[in-house]
Amino acid sequence: MSESMIIATSLQELWQALRLLEGPLGLVPTMGYLHEGHLSLARRARQECRSVVTSIFVNPTQFGPGEDLSRYPRNLPGDLQLLEAAGVDLVWVPTPEVLYPPGYQTWVDVELLSQPLEGAARPGHFRGVATVVSKLFNAVRPEKAYFGQKDAQQAAVIRQLARDLSYPIEIVICPTLREADGLAMSSRNSYLNADERRAAGVLYRALGAARAAYERGERHAAALLQTMSAILAEEPLARPQYLSCADYDTLAEVETLNEKTLLSLAVFIGSTRLIDNIVLG
Amino acid sequence: MSESMIIATSLQELWQALRLLEGPLGLVPTMGYLHEGHLSLARRARQECRSVVTSIFVNPTQFGPGEDLSRYPRNLPGDLQLLEAAGVDLVWVPTPEVLYPPGYQTWVDVELLSQPLEGAARPGHFRGVATVVSKLFNAVRPEKAYFGQKDAQQAAVIRQLARDLSYPIEIVICPTLREADGLAMSSRNSYLNADERRAAGVLYRALGAARAAYERGERHAAALLQTMSAILAEEPLARPQYLSCADYDTLAEVETLNEKTLLSLAVFIGSTRLIDNIVLG
Repeated sequence: MSESMIIATSLQELWQALRLLEGPLGLVPTMGYLHEGHLSLARRARQECRSVVTSIFVNPTQFGPGEDLSRYPRNLPGDLQLLEAAGVDLVWVPTPEVLYPPGYQTWVDVELLSQPLEGAARPGHFRGVATVVSKLFNAVRPEKAYFGQKDAQQAAVIRQLARDLSYPIEIVICPTLREADGLAMSSRNSYLNADERRAAGVLYRALGAARAAYERGERHAAALLQTMSAILAEEPLARPQYLSCADYDTLAEVETLNEKTLLSLAVFIGSTRLIDNIVLG
Repeated sequence: MSESMIIATSLQELWQALRLLEGPLGLVPTMGYLHEGHLSLARRARQECRSVVTSIFVNPTQFGPGEDLSRYPRNLPGDLQLLEAAGVDLVWVPTPEVLYPPGYQTWVDVELLSQPLEGAARPGHFRGVATVVSKLFNAVRPEKAYFGQKDAQQAAVIRQLARDLSYPIEIVICPTLREADGLAMSSRNSYLNADERRAAGVLYRALGAARAAYERGERHAAALLQTMSAILAEEPLARPQYLSCADYDTLAEVETLNEKTLLSLAVFIGSTRLIDNIVLG
């Protein structure tokens, strides 16, 4: 851990700063507007690694045309304060031009895991994620990288990416942090007005009801999905986009729950799209 | 430089061996069946880097269905002897299963530079090249990587890949080595019988005639290509696949030579496909 936190923008600044840090190096990639979920990743990295690097980059290539890139929340001064308090050694805040210079034309695609769920709802999303995460891995060369279970499919895509592309990087997936009513922490929660914020608790109530049914012995995916649908239908501000009961590793939909299973959903609350998940088995 | 050369197969063996090597690290990727061209890369790396790693891997994903993957020439014992004599510290010889384990699904694509020339003649070739080179870069984490100018488009794709994916790796492109009659050294030259070997000199004669015309002031691409065609037409065993006069950086065909220009060609000599190029300007 260095004396005071270094902030780098360009690749040259990053590489100069990295030469000052001792390994093993932990990387915590973020899009900024940090909440306790992000900070839990940074603290875990702080415990497990000699030096901790956090990146803050709202990656344009993982947003679709109609999505919220331009209004994605930002608060760099606040983020830097939180990261310094969490003991982060180096924060990399590249501009879009640093990561996507003129003539940019190279893409990383994790083909199968990128197709369903978020990939179906947001075409091109995971190509953008896989590409930018590859770039962060290449530029920083960490020994460990930390991601949240909240973005379950992203976690699966990145685990596969690291394995497929022979990265000597351990991918550490950390538990979802939740508000008092169970709402998964997310930068996008800041879009919600008071009524929507109250309504947003329905995602975790739906997942919780499905977990309760599972614990009572229910193993039919259709029944668990029906349980979730019924809870969501009680909330007039909620408009479900997908509900899924899928194999944890392949993300293929299952009919009967035998192996480790990912129960996930995407729901619009007003105009804000929220996702959440739990793992069963 | 270590005492005796280490040979690694699995990623674990590679990573264990890499911990013994001091940086800066030079990587020389090859498909084996080494000739003086490869060895010139290894010697250059030896001069410029503290430690030198060579990989030997006939990458299946860069071969098309009708191509020469199964009969690509191999000579691992001879290769290892040559590399030890060249002062290489570590040779990585992964099996296909090490680099493409079951469930493999991740691809790296340098979209624009992969389209013309070799990319048009060999669909999917550069996706295979970009993917395996990314994997070598990730697994070895070198400071410099060495490639031959003989594969000019591959060199362009890899320069773009390194820049686009933010690798802290200097890409060093080394001059083509040639036989006495000008034939570019290539492992595929071993496919040629005596008549074909004699005929194969026509590629460099065609390039040489175009260079002579350029040096006399000719700046029209069509005239240079016509000069090459005329030479190739004199050789009954030669069947040209493409002749190209393209911008050195973008590989877009040019009409008039102003900037640095790549003159390249692919020619079947009997059933063996050979490529060569020169740079003008």
